[in-house]
Amino acid sequence: MLPARDKIVERIRRKQYSLEEYLIGIRAGDKVVLSQAITLVESSLLSDKSLIEDLIQACYGFEAKSKRIGITGSPGVGKSTFIESYGQLLIREGHRVAVLAIDPSSPLSMGSILGDKTRMDSLAREEAAFIRPTAAGISLGGVARKTREVMILCEAAGYDHILIETVGVGQSETMVRSMTDLFLLLIQPGAGDSLQGIKRGIVELADLICVSKADGELLEVARDARSQYEQAVHFLQKKEFGWETKVILSSSVLPDGLKTVHLAIQEYMTFMQESERLKTMRAEQLKFWLHETWRVAILDRYLQSSGFQDAMQNAENQVINGVWSPFYAADQMLNF
Amino acid sequence: MLPARDKIVERIRRKQYSLEEYLIGIRAGDKVVLSQAITLVESSLLSDKSLIEDLIQACYGFEAKSKRIGITGSPGVGKSTFIESYGQLLIREGHRVAVLAIDPSSPLSMGSILGDKTRMDSLAREEAAFIRPTAAGISLGGVARKTREVMILCEAAGYDHILIETVGVGQSETMVRSMTDLFLLLIQPGAGDSLQGIKRGIVELADLICVSKADGELLEVARDARSQYEQAVHFLQKKEFGWETKVILSSSVLPDGLKTVHLAIQEYMTFMQESERLKTMRAEQLKFWLHETWRVAILDRYLQSSGFQDAMQNAENQVINGVWSPFYAADQMLNF
Repeated sequence: MLPARDKIVERIRRKQYSLEEYLIGIRAGDKVVLSQAITLVESSLLSDKSLIEDLIQACYGFEAKSKRIGITGSPGVGKSTFIESYGQLLIREGHRVAVLAIDPSSPLSMGSILGDKTRMDSLAREEAAFIRPTAAGISLGGVARKTREVMILCEAAGYDHILIETVGVGQSETMVRSMTDLFLLLIQPGAGDSLQGIKRGIVELADLICVSKADGELLEVARDARSQYEQAVHFLQKKEFGWETKVILSSSVLPDGLKTVHLAIQEYMTFMQESERLKTMRAEQLKFWLHETWRVAILDRYLQSSGFQDAMQNAENQVINGVWSPFYAADQMLNF
Repeated sequence: MLPARDKIVERIRRKQYSLEEYLIGIRAGDKVVLSQAITLVESSLLSDKSLIEDLIQACYGFEAKSKRIGITGSPGVGKSTFIESYGQLLIREGHRVAVLAIDPSSPLSMGSILGDKTRMDSLAREEAAFIRPTAAGISLGGVARKTREVMILCEAAGYDHILIETVGVGQSETMVRSMTDLFLLLIQPGAGDSLQGIKRGIVELADLICVSKADGELLEVARDARSQYEQAVHFLQKKEFGWETKVILSSSVLPDGLKTVHLAIQEYMTFMQESERLKTMRAEQLKFWLHETWRVAILDRYLQSSGFQDAMQNAENQVINGVWSPFYAADQMLNF
């Protein structure tokens, strides 16, 4: 057995802090500790589970001040450029900005193969910015839960704007919508068929639609795209809580190119706060989150229980050999 | 109480058949009964649950002869046109073709707003074809399970080719891949950035990539697209079981425009059968299916148990009022 002092040195060397040490570091806004806490949260080791739960529980309760913004759009539309510029604008106004990313687009390689580390270079150099790339090797459901947990850590570390980027246009958008206050769709100025590439469902989810790259020779095309999307919004969306989705032009290269989108985001947030819709929406999200957490935990309890894996193995064999249908086999496993 | 005769008349009027009646109708290839059986399977009524399970169990075991083909591609790429032409080609060769569709693209309106009923008109008129549009109002997970069950009904009804169309490019592709023998990606001939719109994950999943509309003035562009995708495939895919994904040109308007893709599909199927890879893959899919069914059933058991809904309601209130974190609340519900 190691002496106590050596144990602590060993722990620090392996970057294993105690709950208290994590909390002090996070609350002090220490990016290194925050990063290590996120790595811990992303861990799937059973031995880390209890510490992760305590850490999240302790970091819970700093969300009231934060604005959570989901940002989506097809690959190539300029999400990173937009986030880089908008993040810097927020920082100039005195905010602290955390950028998270969800990319479940690649089920086989588990993570984006495009995930180069040089993205958002100048934003990353800002003291008040924290950028965390996608966690690799986690399922979509897992990514969603981990992203929510990471968001809570970032809020506890004093980041008052959480920008969650989702790469591409797919199922992950519903997930991101379920954990953000505002869902922003970025659109590229394009030809008459510009609506084609974007799923209707995404347009329905968006609170703001921003036609990016609206500068230089693309300005006219961008204006056309705005008109089209305004029509689409009018046609597609339910005005269930009184906010009509705005379609705006933006440019990350013009000096004032982000002003319109910044104002629109502020207008939306003010509306959401004053109408108490933000409160309602976050309550709905908390409920959703409770159900998700419960669901995962229930299944986990079975998977970890003694003898279950053997019984499932047997059921699998019966199914593969054609003795049981998968439905009958699942029924048998219900009685485990 | 109604006399027995009136009861039967009432049942038939309400299109409620007995298990035996469903089975006789399905095995006879009666499209009306098959349609009604599918409507039953799609029902979420608790009172239908036991009949649905018995029906699926009884229809199980006709899958050996069938070929299951998943077809995906961006909106507008011509999936319906392709399926219409390819379905007719298969029917001319003496096959029976069922076409199913998965479209979870619109989370709010639950189903495709583009789902017009005039699609695949000429295929729909074929005696040997059966076309079933997307079930509405079901979650992605639900759609996946229902689609698998509908596939089994169609196989029992004698359809030896099941074409499953997924609308758009997203999470549903992984689901469709998990229930098909072959996954076909349709690509539109486009500009140099044609790879942009397609998620890498989809390219990784594809067994065949077909550049559609390769005719007339698009032929040259289509050839360029083929070269690009051949490179992408080379770069992206793991040759884990010896099949190298082919990229082929097709046209739904030229007389022999589908020949290449038909031959490639046959070549793939032969390879899969001879290498026993088909057997392995279907075994893996059965396992996946067993786990999915079990998972849903376990959660259902809790949701249906007495007092659970009240306890969950209380947990929700505690979370919304900020007394419990969602994580703590989920823990409490674990002990229910």
